[in-house]
Amino acid sequence: MRGVSGAFLHELRVRYGECDPQGIVFNANYVAYVDVALTELWREAFGSYEAMTEQGIDMVVAALELEFRSPARFDDLVGVEITIAKLGTTSMVSRLRLSRDDDLLLDGTIRHVFVDAESWAKTPAPDWVRERLRPYLAAASELA
Amino acid sequence: MRGVSGAFLHELRVRYGECDPQGIVFNANYVAYVDVALTELWREAFGSYEAMTEQGIDMVVAALELEFRSPARFDDLVGVEITIAKLGTTSMVSRLRLSRDDDLLLDGTIRHVFVDAESWAKTPAPDWVRERLRPYLAAASELA
Amino acid sequence: MRGVSGAFLHELRVRYGECDPQGIVFNANYVAYVDVALTELWREAFGSYEAMTEQGIDMVVAALELEFRSPARFDDLVGVEITIAKLGTTSMVSRLRLSRDDDLLLDGTIRHVFVDAESWAKTPAPDWVRERLRPYLAAASELA
Amino acid sequence: MRGVSGAFLHELRVRYGECDPQGIVFNANYVAYVDVALTELWREAFGSYEAMTEQGIDMVVAALELEFRSPARFDDLVGVEITIAKLGTTSMVSRLRLSRDDDLLLDGTIRHVFVDAESWAKTPAPDWVRERLRPYLAAASELA
Repeated sequence: MRGVSGAFLHELRVRYGECDPQGIVFNANYVAYVDVALTELWREAFGSYEAMTEQGIDMVVAALELEFRSPARFDDLVGVEITIAKLGTTSMVSRLRLSRDDDLLLDGTIRHVFVDAESWAKTPAPDWVRERLRPYLAAASELA
Repeated sequence: MRGVSGAFLHELRVRYGECDPQGIVFNANYVAYVDVALTELWREAFGSYEAMTEQGIDMVVAALELEFRSPARFDDLVGVEITIAKLGTTSMVSRLRLSRDDDLLLDGTIRHVFVDAESWAKTPAPDWVRERLRPYLAAASELA
Repeated sequence: MRGVSGAFLHELRVRYGECDPQGIVFNANYVAYVDVALTELWREAFGSYEAMTEQGIDMVVAALELEFRSPARFDDLVGVEITIAKLGTTSMVSRLRLSRDDDLLLDGTIRHVFVDAESWAKTPAPDWVRERLRPYLAAASELA
Repeated sequence: MRGVSGAFLHELRVRYGECDPQGIVFNANYVAYVDVALTELWREAFGSYEAMTEQGIDMVVAALELEFRSPARFDDLVGVEITIAKLGTTSMVSRLRLSRDDDLLLDGTIRHVFVDAESWAKTPAPDWVRERLRPYLAAASELA
């Protein structure tokens, strides 16, 4: 699915147990939402996340930057948009944007590192991985 | 640690993110509390949970029965008491009692099955496992 | 949506962060799945869960019985079926059945108590609540 | 408790259900760990977190920056160190450092905004709040 900006978009519904006594989504759960959306991007690009790991390539999160703009609440439909901003040799930086209708909830970036699925050593993303991710690259993004 | 009844007791503090918009612990999290307390019982009995799994024996949850009596809230100190009610050949039934000071929050039972840590096939608990669990057996409990 | 038995059915996808080092869904998370499915049943029956609480009626979980038959794994599509087995004056017992394709993962029951949304005192479910829940009653179920 | 650097230190044990199929702590859960440690800092400084909110002052997370250095695993004892780097009029920036023995697991910063506990409008931290937080300020930090 595509958001207004052309970014990959996955929508999910806020669950009751993800909200805290302030009545809003507990901060840690937004990080889980990003993970869910990345799994769905991988499904669209590769068939499934495991279709990549079975070929010996996995990813780990190296860094995260989030700005919380407005809270989401129980039963809200939240759109998680992901654009790959930089696809380097061994790492990938994605821009994140979470929104509810026209309200921006959170934006930020997440950096992943590609690793060998067995040894967990940093490894260059193979060409077939880079090829499948190309459609999710921001227009002005860099390909190392 | 021991509770009033002589049962194994582990105390934990309710975390903010474990509470829901009703201001009380989200039901699923009580099940996680029981798991935390079982890990601590295993630490006392075996050194650590992994000290058992490294010998090729693991456990899976087969059944759970819970009665919710009173809710726990953010920052409450909750005592989780576990008594082994029945240590059968391949399974174990434990009685659960969660409380805050003198208030009963929840009681119930959990049934585990011993499995081979590799194949996950049901397997009898070896004698050394049964020996280490003996101190946690209820006075009137059955040893199959 | 309806399952094979005519029960209310909600399907959800297992998230990576819901699985534990055994590679299977951590037990507590099945309880959260049941809560998600109940929210969806309420959406179908009442428009939303809040459509009921805004009228002054809420529910709390009083008891839970679960038998774990087979584990769910990352990315599995899990069907959660709910049938109201008994709609008493102040309480409701629902039968639960979680499955993946033809595999039964878990079955059990959950008992809720209706409460005043302000005072949290036990309160009879009003007629309009009972009327909306009637379609989810098991054929042979009792209406107190 | 104090860490080597003089920062506030809270230690916690990694729970099984917080780890994912890679066998390591799921990323979102580190954010929850930071929240647990902040609650404990508040307990030391104010008696409890609620001792502040009951006076009409609450906090919300505005931004988060995390660098993941090394993963934590089940049963690890993780130290969460918090130093207040900047205590502005309405906001507070804290430095975070999570470690296991001598291994750095994660470092970063979290920015909170003080809000009115009723209206949730941004509000200056009163003097009594600033006074209680002074011991947690980094030596070279700024007091707006």
